[in-house]
Amino acid sequence: MPRFKVPEATVERLSVYLRSIKRLKDERVLPSQELADLVGTSDGQVRKDLAYFGEFGVPGQGYRVGTLKEEISRILGVDRVWSIALVGMGNLGAALLAYPGFKRQGFEIKVVFDNDLSKIGKVWQGVKIEDVEKIPQILFEQEIKMGIIATPAQAAQAVASKLIEGGVKAILNFAPVRIVVPDRVKLRNVDLSIELETLSYFLGRKGIAGG
Amino acid sequence: MPRFKVPEATVERLSVYLRSIKRLKDERVLPSQELADLVGTSDGQVRKDLAYFGEFGVPGQGYRVGTLKEEISRILGVDRVWSIALVGMGNLGAALLAYPGFKRQGFEIKVVFDNDLSKIGKVWQGVKIEDVEKIPQILFEQEIKMGIIATPAQAAQAVASKLIEGGVKAILNFAPVRIVVPDRVKLRNVDLSIELETLSYFLGRKGIAGG
Repeated sequence: MPRFKVPEATVERLSVYLRSIKRLKDERVLPSQELADLVGTSDGQVRKDLAYFGEFGVPGQGYRVGTLKEEISRILGVDRVWSIALVGMGNLGAALLAYPGFKRQGFEIKVVFDNDLSKIGKVWQGVKIEDVEKIPQILFEQEIKMGIIATPAQAAQAVASKLIEGGVKAILNFAPVRIVVPDRVKLRNVDLSIELETLSYFLGRKGIAGG
Repeated sequence: MPRFKVPEATVERLSVYLRSIKRLKDERVLPSQELADLVGTSDGQVRKDLAYFGEFGVPGQGYRVGTLKEEISRILGVDRVWSIALVGMGNLGAALLAYPGFKRQGFEIKVVFDNDLSKIGKVWQGVKIEDVEKIPQILFEQEIKMGIIATPAQAAQAVASKLIEGGVKAILNFAPVRIVVPDRVKLRNVDLSIELETLSYFLGRKGIAGG
């Protein structure tokens, strides 16, 4: 357990480190510079990121790949399976449900919610679609602590409140709107419009925006 | 045009500011504190962000909403329509193509590419699916400068190279892999696994990970 508050950027990089070393042999000892090169950061950044969590390098040589995999998995909490509730079974919801990477990395969508009567009760990719009204009850019964919101913007805040009522402690929000959650709940937003607008800003700066 | 390098976080916030004021009347004059409250940041942050782009506030009162909308739209380059090429017509590609928010905000997917012969030649949501081999040629002909990669990880780097060969200057990458682009090309990554692993890290810290 780290002694200091760990920056969110460090946690994000741990996830990238883990992906980068997945195909390497456990027996290898990886110099920090080589790990840095794999993920496109600096030697110093790697050492600083890992130092938050104690010493698990081989002095003067680097990090044993097997130890790195185990330790980072443990730190990130991906050495176990997390159950997830997905709300919103539109195009994006369907894409998320079908995404094979989640399950491979220990994230399993256990239940899907929608408010469309023509969808409720159906089974999609082996997962049952339930009524949004049942969110608190079903989450509580299944002890689900993580939720994904893939609804239209206007529904997102009400859905977030229902998820939290059901005991969710971490939310990934895809709806293009700011939602408010209590401090004890961790919220991450994926806003595709912000991504595109950031790109368009940089396209404009490059002077290729044209007339 | 700003005199200093503008932080990417500022550009992202401009996008949030713009969304937050969209439904406000143009005639209103908005104190910076009120704008800060709307987006969940501080008064000082709002002023600092906007100061990069010159003075367009009303001294001692705030910002005229209409001016803010115009200026931020101009800065972000969303006062025009950007043509986009989407590569990868799987579940995620279909979700992105169907996402109504893009077009509303001036981003139009003009062409889709895939390598699946059963998809090439078809029309989906009014957009034709073309062979990935034709990426450079079609992008060049249609003067498309922005690309979205929604392919499996192993295809992403080759696709990025083809996009750049076709003249693309900005790429949004959804494939869960690190791709390398020249400095002159702006790359943004949306990695869903990183989002989930960051959440699982915080769930673990909260001590609710169980035994």
